[in-house]
Amino acid sequence: MLKNELTNLLKIDNPIIQAPMAGGITTSALVAAVSNNGALGMIGAGYLSPVQLRDQIREVKQLTTKNFGVNLFVPSNFEVIENHIEEANSLLDKYRTQLKVEQELEAFPCMKEMLQVYNEQVQIIVEEKVRVCSFTFGVPSMEQITLLKQQGVILIGTATTVTEAIAIEKLGMDAVVVQGSEAGGHRGNFISRHEEGMIGVMSLIPQVADQVTIPVIAAGGIMDGRGLIAALSLGAKAVQMGTAFLTCVESGAHPLHKEAILQAKDEDTTLTNAFSGKWARGISNTFTKEMHEYEANIPNFPIQNTLTQSIRKASASQNNKEYMSLWSGQSPTLAKNETVEALIQRTIKQAERGMI
Amino acid sequence: MLKNELTNLLKIDNPIIQAPMAGGITTSALVAAVSNNGALGMIGAGYLSPVQLRDQIREVKQLTTKNFGVNLFVPSNFEVIENHIEEANSLLDKYRTQLKVEQELEAFPCMKEMLQVYNEQVQIIVEEKVRVCSFTFGVPSMEQITLLKQQGVILIGTATTVTEAIAIEKLGMDAVVVQGSEAGGHRGNFISRHEEGMIGVMSLIPQVADQVTIPVIAAGGIMDGRGLIAALSLGAKAVQMGTAFLTCVESGAHPLHKEAILQAKDEDTTLTNAFSGKWARGISNTFTKEMHEYEANIPNFPIQNTLTQSIRKASASQNNKEYMSLWSGQSPTLAKNETVEALIQRTIKQAERGMI
Repeated sequence: MLKNELTNLLKIDNPIIQAPMAGGITTSALVAAVSNNGALGMIGAGYLSPVQLRDQIREVKQLTTKNFGVNLFVPSNFEVIENHIEEANSLLDKYRTQLKVEQELEAFPCMKEMLQVYNEQVQIIVEEKVRVCSFTFGVPSMEQITLLKQQGVILIGTATTVTEAIAIEKLGMDAVVVQGSEAGGHRGNFISRHEEGMIGVMSLIPQVADQVTIPVIAAGGIMDGRGLIAALSLGAKAVQMGTAFLTCVESGAHPLHKEAILQAKDEDTTLTNAFSGKWARGISNTFTKEMHEYEANIPNFPIQNTLTQSIRKASASQNNKEYMSLWSGQSPTLAKNETVEALIQRTIKQAERGMI
Repeated sequence: MLKNELTNLLKIDNPIIQAPMAGGITTSALVAAVSNNGALGMIGAGYLSPVQLRDQIREVKQLTTKNFGVNLFVPSNFEVIENHIEEANSLLDKYRTQLKVEQELEAFPCMKEMLQVYNEQVQIIVEEKVRVCSFTFGVPSMEQITLLKQQGVILIGTATTVTEAIAIEKLGMDAVVVQGSEAGGHRGNFISRHEEGMIGVMSLIPQVADQVTIPVIAAGGIMDGRGLIAALSLGAKAVQMGTAFLTCVESGAHPLHKEAILQAKDEDTTLTNAFSGKWARGISNTFTKEMHEYEANIPNFPIQNTLTQSIRKASASQNNKEYMSLWSGQSPTLAKNETVEALIQRTIKQAERGMI
């Protein structure tokens, strides 16, 4: 039951994928520990430069001989609305003053530049012979898919609706992560609108499994063997766990971030677009609460992400969790601070015990 | 695996409860068919007068000798904001004109009257010796709990968060329905705020199961044997299915309502407070889309419910689904138009096959 065509394809013993959390969480130690314990470690490369990505891939290879993967953010066009940027900037000035952040002029990334970085990242996947590559916020071009498949790279898309999962299958990708509304971090919707893509995994897995033939990977709120068995029963072939790995010893998440999750209640997460311009789920704090009423006019990703960067950074370095993005799924009370080995063994043992 | 302390307590063969959908859906034929097929039928009595409730209980008793239950709405204080009522009324005039509805002066229910109806309903539960009574939008008073328990009535509360489930256990109730964000119809939050209570069942079940000792009943997006096994694996002792029963032959839902669900995609539901003043999930239509921008100022339940009553009624009688409340959970593509017997047998067989 815990082995299937997807675990065979990915060459892993356990149907568990570590979610590719971007922003320093997926350290090489984390990724390698996951792969060394029979699951699939993933580098969250969304914010890595090509050089950083190549370095980390090589570092992980030093730490494990097992398969691991890389996740890339697919750039998409974004509107630049000057009024919204000015408004956001003046709202954010309050926090800059409070945190004593220099009001330096941020340089916004432009689409051309983002595409260039992304294309270089894809090239590195090929050159470094990474075995698995997943994509968020969109899908790779047919040209890239052909190139990557020729090199034997296993391609995984991210969907929040049946429509998106079908699109991913039609492109010839090998598997699809279905991201339920429970999931922490950024929403992966790229065809469906934000609200349409807010579907709980209990609903999403069987509906997608009925409509596509590629293996389904369930993401959102899954933290232990109970969630693993549930996801497999619903038609998934593996689970992708984020928050559960985020609080692990090997994760690079800020100590305050781990602590915020470990102390949170089930009802303490919120959706916000105020950190990055894209909707994402995290533990609510002063920043998400105060910015709530301005959500309609927040500049698009990655503009808002650039605008809040120094605030998030200063908040973290001042050990103040109130202005950091504390990404978390909806099951924080099931999180533990343990080693990756302990988490994976506990999950598999519980799943085996729970088999009906 | 499909039998446990809760099925024993409820004296049912299958760990399935038919959700108590109010507003004419839970016909006596539906409730009795569910109970006769080894699950628990429930009368959704939220909008029934005491006389109607007594009549239906007696009618169901004619159709089954098995246990069945009744669900009551617990009245709660609501604010009357004259500005919001005027604004809502003028927004609704457009629909009244379009549907040629007489603009009669609606009489709003007052709290005193609602409490009186509710207290009479509780009295009828006792007098008619109904075996199971569940509550939504709040919890009964200690006095009522004592009275009902003395009569041997099994009491079930409805929770959307761990906080609410703990409150229900503390009151001495016998079981708790945990309503995930996937669920169709009205949200049952009564302590937690609306957004806090929007937790997917994959997250909600294990977190509640870890925190209470009373049996947990999972609700939201569960439509078949896959969902049943998943819910039990996560720690639930039974499931409560709404949408799956709503499209059954025996259900009293309007044919257009059934058809809207049977034709919907996974991403076609939305949350709206524009029909009743309380948040609820249904298939999106012209009314939910057009009213979306006014959600912040909608009068409280039951005022808005009263204001939209004639519109919903006229829309239904004119076979126009665009202004009816088309309640549905997030798994409409799994709904079928079949008999209750076929649904329950299919679900149990699939669950038995799916047992790992």
